[in-house]
Amino acid sequence: LAGRVSGLGTTVFSEFSALAARHGAVNLGQGFPDFDGPDEVKEAAWRAIRDGTNQYAPSMGARELRVAIAEHAARFYGQQVDPDTMVTVTSGATEALLDAILGLVDPGDEVIVFEPFYDSYVANLAFVGATPRFVPLRPPDAHHAAWWFDGAELEAAFGPRTRLLILNTPHNPTGKVFTREELERIGALCERHGVTVLSDEVYEHIVFAPARHVRPSTVPVLAGRTVTVSSMGKTFSLTGWKIGWIIAPPPLRDAVQRAHQFVTFATASPFQAATAVALRMPDAYFQTLEADYRVRRELLLSGLREAGLEAQAPEGSYFILADISQQGFPDDVAFCRHLVTQGGVAAIPPSVFYSVEHRHLGQGFARFAFCKTHGVLQEAARRLREGL
Amino acid sequence: LAGRVSGLGTTVFSEFSALAARHGAVNLGQGFPDFDGPDEVKEAAWRAIRDGTNQYAPSMGARELRVAIAEHAARFYGQQVDPDTMVTVTSGATEALLDAILGLVDPGDEVIVFEPFYDSYVANLAFVGATPRFVPLRPPDAHHAAWWFDGAELEAAFGPRTRLLILNTPHNPTGKVFTREELERIGALCERHGVTVLSDEVYEHIVFAPARHVRPSTVPVLAGRTVTVSSMGKTFSLTGWKIGWIIAPPPLRDAVQRAHQFVTFATASPFQAATAVALRMPDAYFQTLEADYRVRRELLLSGLREAGLEAQAPEGSYFILADISQQGFPDDVAFCRHLVTQGGVAAIPPSVFYSVEHRHLGQGFARFAFCKTHGVLQEAARRLREGL
Ligand SMILES: CSCCC(=O)C(=O)O
Ligand SMILES: CSCCC(=O)C(=O)O
Repeated sequence: LAGRVSGLGTTVFSEFSALAARHGAVNLGQGFPDFDGPDEVKEAAWRAIRDGTNQYAPSMGARELRVAIAEHAARFYGQQVDPDTMVTVTSGATEALLDAILGLVDPGDEVIVFEPFYDSYVANLAFVGATPRFVPLRPPDAHHAAWWFDGAELEAAFGPRTRLLILNTPHNPTGKVFTREELERIGALCERHGVTVLSDEVYEHIVFAPARHVRPSTVPVLAGRTVTVSSMGKTFSLTGWKIGWIIAPPPLRDAVQRAHQFVTFATASPFQAATAVALRMPDAYFQTLEADYRVRRELLLSGLREAGLEAQAPEGSYFILADISQQGFPDDVAFCRHLVTQGGVAAIPPSVFYSVEHRHLGQGFARFAFCKTHGVLQEAARRLREGL
Repeated sequence: LAGRVSGLGTTVFSEFSALAARHGAVNLGQGFPDFDGPDEVKEAAWRAIRDGTNQYAPSMGARELRVAIAEHAARFYGQQVDPDTMVTVTSGATEALLDAILGLVDPGDEVIVFEPFYDSYVANLAFVGATPRFVPLRPPDAHHAAWWFDGAELEAAFGPRTRLLILNTPHNPTGKVFTREELERIGALCERHGVTVLSDEVYEHIVFAPARHVRPSTVPVLAGRTVTVSSMGKTFSLTGWKIGWIIAPPPLRDAVQRAHQFVTFATASPFQAATAVALRMPDAYFQTLEADYRVRRELLLSGLREAGLEAQAPEGSYFILADISQQGFPDDVAFCRHLVTQGGVAAIPPSVFYSVEHRHLGQGFARFAFCKTHGVLQEAARRLREGL
């Protein structure tokens, strides 16, 4: 066992999906839809398979998909993307994040990470021997309508060894959508310290008006220094296809591509062809996605509240953090273990999205996913009401 | 740009595939079939997509596929594999190799690599800060019918920091199939020095009798210390699907799985379902594959010889190393550049499979792939005759 993996357990998503299956629980844990993606996208994959798009794609991705990624960036964000020098297609966002860290971060470098964070970020930093510097996101309070960060705390995290800052917007697990003003503040600090930004935007199309997704790389101060990561899984309800990508200015793209070619080399060709079709779906598809998720969000919110769990409506993502601090459990892990084994509902304990030192900051919450059909959300609500 | 990628260029496969396309060359470079995999496997993928196997697979792989991998190992090698504790499914063998190196090798460790080597091995060692120790494979000569290694040279490569030895059988690019006796010799040294073996066997079903693939982990001295890597791409002529796997004793599997969950997390679900179907194809499929490849091998061999290039029939893989030392070029790169731009045939210069210091050992050869339809191989032969 190498040192870099000796501190890693099984991901919480695997653990709670297995527990949910074992106990016949309604699974609001790991974030995957229990409904399927669009038929035209599935049929596009079949056409590619049937017609022989079955050998290695180019390592940087099929050109047809790179063009569709560029068109999508222009359509939704007015971003100018050259498909030949600014895009690499990856095996999901998870690989894209690792490729970026392998390509950009040296051992001993410091990387700023907002906390809570998606678990792979810090595991990937351990892979390369870099040191995370955590900046807390703080819950809404009397002065803040949404999750927020303290500008002075962020500024204090920068130092001479800071190489990268990892952003995630919309944010998993809080549902926070970073505002343009926040991104400008972050960008000014990154510019002053010569820091690159790695921006994970996999929930870019699950954002509830009046919130709007601002792509960090379209904020002028961030444009030249941001590696954008996204994927098709959440937007098209096909999380198992594992097609992701990075968009970055050519020198940053080049660094990421060098790593990518020796991580997976290339990604499933037929799903690349189908993802090109998906990204070109009409605007109505994306509007309906938001509207459908808004209904699901309200269903789960009212279910949680009726069961006595306070929760704020997330601005984005398909997750809700519910306040469990009044439920009489020592922490979120105890609560979630009880809920999945006794209450028949799986949720994720968000303390795993914190560093060991800051774990207590997550212990008053449980994360529930609402990427589920109405009947499942209603059954979860019923079980929560009876179980709590 | 991080130091670990600053020495890496574009892979030679990407470079020569692009050159082949630009010059309308017959592409015998990158190793991908120009024919398609079995219809029943393609249709199994479509059924999985159509029927909704489209969300995240378990990180270690769909159970159905892990069971099929275990059955395949029992059927062909008599190997006992527990699907729940000894298998991880990956995004191709490329990811499997990286996962193993991330999970097993610490910075400063030494890793023994036979030279020539597939390029990702040494790039992956650079990713983790390990040091390769090269052992040359030597060409056939008056005393050796096949590529061979010197036992004393191998023994001298072991030292107190040796953590891993990377094997590749059937071997790319030489076509060597390691014999049981060679594996026993390697295993005795690994046992004496407490070294783990990483065995890349992606060409396991492209082996020409009387040669036979011996799975290293079935050699008793290697059984407890070997991580086996394979994939479905070459065996089922679907290199673009990118489904690979590792098989290893539980503690080694655990180390690899810990890395895997933060490299890609999981791999395309529909292709996992289809790979389970593929691995259960009747023996006749595998026999026909070998017979078909034998005809292709003879076609390319005679084409090369008629063009004045001496070459030995490979025991395995779909590659032939041809002797180009009498063609009047300064090295293999110059020969291959000339051949693709002027001769209309793409081949791979094997010096890229060597460390910089040993590059000269590859300069007398060019690697030609014969995973191509007969017409293409005949057209390549015609162009070689005319161009050389
Ligand atoms: C790759 S499994 C995790 C899925 C997910 O994004 C989440 O549940 O947070
Ligand atoms: C991953 S591209 C390389 C394909 C291959 O195995 C080869 O050509 O050697």
